[in-house]
Amino acid sequence: MRGSIGSMLLDRLRHCGVSRIYGVPGDYNLEFLELIERTPGIRFIGTCNELNAAYAADGDARLSGVGAVLVTYGVGDLSALSAVAGACAEGVPLVVISGMPPLHAVQSRALVHHTLADGDFDNVMTCYQQFTAACTRLHPASARVETDRVLDRMHTEKRPVYIQFPSDICYVETDIPTLAPAMPVSDPALLVRAAGRLAERIARSRQPVVLVDGMVRQYGLNDQVERFCQHFNIPYAALSTARTQLAETGSLWLGQYGGAASAPDVAAYVHGADCVIGLGVRFVDSTSGYFSQRIAPGAMVDVQPFSMTCDGENIQGIRAQDLLDAVMQDRTPVTPPVRNPWRAQQETAPAVASAQGGGWTQAIFWQRVEQFLRPHDVVLADNGSSMVAMLHAHLPAGCSLLVQPVWAAIGYSLPAALGACLATPHRRHVLFIGDGSFQMTAQELSTLLRHKCAITVFLINNGGYTIERMILGPQATYNDIANWDYAALPTAMGGDAGPLCLRVQDRAELEAALDQAAANQGLTFMEVGFTPMDAPAGMAAMGQAVRRYDYGIDTPDLP
Amino acid sequence: MRGSIGSMLLDRLRHCGVSRIYGVPGDYNLEFLELIERTPGIRFIGTCNELNAAYAADGDARLSGVGAVLVTYGVGDLSALSAVAGACAEGVPLVVISGMPPLHAVQSRALVHHTLADGDFDNVMTCYQQFTAACTRLHPASARVETDRVLDRMHTEKRPVYIQFPSDICYVETDIPTLAPAMPVSDPALLVRAAGRLAERIARSRQPVVLVDGMVRQYGLNDQVERFCQHFNIPYAALSTARTQLAETGSLWLGQYGGAASAPDVAAYVHGADCVIGLGVRFVDSTSGYFSQRIAPGAMVDVQPFSMTCDGENIQGIRAQDLLDAVMQDRTPVTPPVRNPWRAQQETAPAVASAQGGGWTQAIFWQRVEQFLRPHDVVLADNGSSMVAMLHAHLPAGCSLLVQPVWAAIGYSLPAALGACLATPHRRHVLFIGDGSFQMTAQELSTLLRHKCAITVFLINNGGYTIERMILGPQATYNDIANWDYAALPTAMGGDAGPLCLRVQDRAELEAALDQAAANQGLTFMEVGFTPMDAPAGMAAMGQAVRRYDYGIDTPDLP
Repeated sequence: MRGSIGSMLLDRLRHCGVSRIYGVPGDYNLEFLELIERTPGIRFIGTCNELNAAYAADGDARLSGVGAVLVTYGVGDLSALSAVAGACAEGVPLVVISGMPPLHAVQSRALVHHTLADGDFDNVMTCYQQFTAACTRLHPASARVETDRVLDRMHTEKRPVYIQFPSDICYVETDIPTLAPAMPVSDPALLVRAAGRLAERIARSRQPVVLVDGMVRQYGLNDQVERFCQHFNIPYAALSTARTQLAETGSLWLGQYGGAASAPDVAAYVHGADCVIGLGVRFVDSTSGYFSQRIAPGAMVDVQPFSMTCDGENIQGIRAQDLLDAVMQDRTPVTPPVRNPWRAQQETAPAVASAQGGGWTQAIFWQRVEQFLRPHDVVLADNGSSMVAMLHAHLPAGCSLLVQPVWAAIGYSLPAALGACLATPHRRHVLFIGDGSFQMTAQELSTLLRHKCAITVFLINNGGYTIERMILGPQATYNDIANWDYAALPTAMGGDAGPLCLRVQDRAELEAALDQAAANQGLTFMEVGFTPMDAPAGMAAMGQAVRRYDYGIDTPDLP
Repeated sequence: MRGSIGSMLLDRLRHCGVSRIYGVPGDYNLEFLELIERTPGIRFIGTCNELNAAYAADGDARLSGVGAVLVTYGVGDLSALSAVAGACAEGVPLVVISGMPPLHAVQSRALVHHTLADGDFDNVMTCYQQFTAACTRLHPASARVETDRVLDRMHTEKRPVYIQFPSDICYVETDIPTLAPAMPVSDPALLVRAAGRLAERIARSRQPVVLVDGMVRQYGLNDQVERFCQHFNIPYAALSTARTQLAETGSLWLGQYGGAASAPDVAAYVHGADCVIGLGVRFVDSTSGYFSQRIAPGAMVDVQPFSMTCDGENIQGIRAQDLLDAVMQDRTPVTPPVRNPWRAQQETAPAVASAQGGGWTQAIFWQRVEQFLRPHDVVLADNGSSMVAMLHAHLPAGCSLLVQPVWAAIGYSLPAALGACLATPHRRHVLFIGDGSFQMTAQELSTLLRHKCAITVFLINNGGYTIERMILGPQATYNDIANWDYAALPTAMGGDAGPLCLRVQDRAELEAALDQAAANQGLTFMEVGFTPMDAPAGMAAMGQAVRRYDYGIDTPDLP
């Protein structure tokens, strides 16, 4: 088959599963936009700015498997870079396409706008090389081969890739052979060896545990890992980066593990394990209670997407997916449990700290709002109070929790919610976001309204950056922000869709508002007010850990 | 003198003229924020996000001479990068300070949040190296020397610099010797040689002209260049990047020069000149009518900040400032005019295309609004219709026009207006911005309100990206954006300051609204509605030039 370079790229994107491209038009990407507009099965979703486009694509990709972004050169791709770096840090596959100046301008080193006007067209590429799995600039002679190369890297590594698309080659003809990008295969002999090592390790363990991280989402191993745990009757825990990837009910579910930041019985079980099967595990400060994980020496079996390390031996050339299959085929299921004394205790433990008294606090709010969540909701929680609260909450079966604890950019979740809503329009979406986070990316609320997304937004208004106040400067003015009339914004930003806007300042108002929200079919926006230093359980301890790590000091008030 | 590294950095910033630092708190910059809060003479101005912080610092620097930004690592500095690249492209000196993870984490390659969690702490630096004059990471052993090095580069090159400030060294003691950073001096012999060449060149010219670019603003040469032109009685023109830097009245002022995009008599005069004294001139697509400048062969005398090229000879080691002084000292003033047949014609030419009929069009709006401007206003115009219109307008004496034609990022001007207002609070500020541009950075309207900025904002609502429609896809949906109730936003974003909000849809409403705006002391926000393809004079021609350059095609409708 033959066709234009633009149609070749669209063909390859659809083949990867892309059906939505988020972005902003610019003079260097208009011909490609024209082509998208004429191509069935792929939609352009305009966002207010490029940072938000990349966040939206990230939210989409976490549910659909892949995200795509189209921006213009310099002003556009650099504006999106932080969000793309976030996708790289958290293992989210995105294709970022930058419409760039025409090849004739690149070749003559012309001084054009959206560049430093010094003839350098390599500086933006250099930036993207830092935060992607692969980058390329399309030329007629190599466009198809290069496109396939970078998309293969995205597919294999589950991280972003970046394509520069010069404006003048969209309609140049190229060949478009049929293609089926495939995962690398496992080396059979190495797979037998690795499966044997792992099976033997499980068999001689007294207290094994499976610990899952983002790899499970990235490679779609959710069902397989659950089967694996059931097969060997091994309890499992999840890092915060892998919450809701496996069922969070049943006798094998231990809970969230994050070192000293775990529930005590979860920490005790993991720390007492003599065989920790880590699936893509990476202990980051924010996912490990500031490196307080205590895995017994020699206990970790480190399974990564294409390798395993067990008892000091590293085996490359295998796929995690094949490894789990091979071990299950090798060994018969295990019953009764290898050891799981843990469940009985856990059933009686409260899911969150119980709210005392009749006052109005975040503790009361988070406890009550947990009951608002329904099975199969998509829940997004921004960095700060919202994420801390949701990571402590018990989520109903089938919920998906979208958080960004590693890159930890405030403002991520609102545009990500746009992507989530468009990726899974049949599910209910619930967003928790603080006022400081909301102001970062607030304009994308209008795009949620434009696409008539059925989402409930809880805006936690505490007058500023409470997560920073917990670290340093509880009274400092730099942690205060301007107070908006948040509940007036949905109407101002495109109220045709009839958003339901509510303000909550106490328990009674919350009850009434939750009833209204549960009944509303469209967008609900609920501003919930708290005092500046009120925070969910766990925030103060987190603030202290950060303060010690970053500044080596113990108290939030400097002398 | 001795003091902490943090206080040393603040001392150096004040020495450079910094009195405001724009930014967002983050866990890695809190100790430095504490120090700022306790330091007289320097204020932290919190913005809604980091991109906007850097735009605000850019707007501030264009009026005050220097801007400063404080963000946190990764999520913060990468979000600001596009705006910093814009400052680099347009020659605006900024100090960008990134509070980064503690040195102990860097040295142990710890997997911390706000990084890719792979132990790499060099990738953000690599990005900033592409778009700054100098970068450094502070260490106790070299903090003072490195700070002085990068600030000297900023001072000399008038471009941004970037400082990574690890969180754990703010209170480490260092020496703080008194310092007076100075411009490089000119080599006396080379200066004599260059001045001789230039004086001789002027003396034998039939029709000389001075053409000014951003260098005049960057190095503060405004008064000196005016004196130079008067001394030799040479007419002068300005590229769009240098508008309002020299007086735009008087017999020597020719007008704006941009190749074929100039007024015909200005183009004729410059193209007919046998001696074009270019002061920092750089012909960029957007400032030269897509490279349609026609300077007579051999006519250009290229004066750059630290060099001159004249008649094929390049002389380094001189300062432009010293060169102009030396030439004026060498030669006695010239009267009568060397040649200036131009003024008589120009006085009769209309400043803008005259509006015909009684309908409601952008032509009518821009013509009328020109009379709203007063001497010494600071006028900001965003990329697109607003900038095109303002570059065609006649601005009253003493006005400053802030535009960004080279980097050309839409959304720049709203946060830049914040910086401008805080830099020159005694002047009146007027902002023209389209709806597409406004949505990019809309949240910073709240910071204008928070600081009670007296600014009049004209929001040009034409339902999308009209500048792109002029290039390609006039009917395409990708160029449409969600319609907001713009005039409701100032109240929603912090209406305590009592903004005056107005909506204008015709000529009569405009008259009434302008009267109200002229009388209002606080923030005025005026939404002005137009049809999608209505645009100021010059937009269609610009769209055509871009279309040909980017895509090699002539019509905006693809087959």
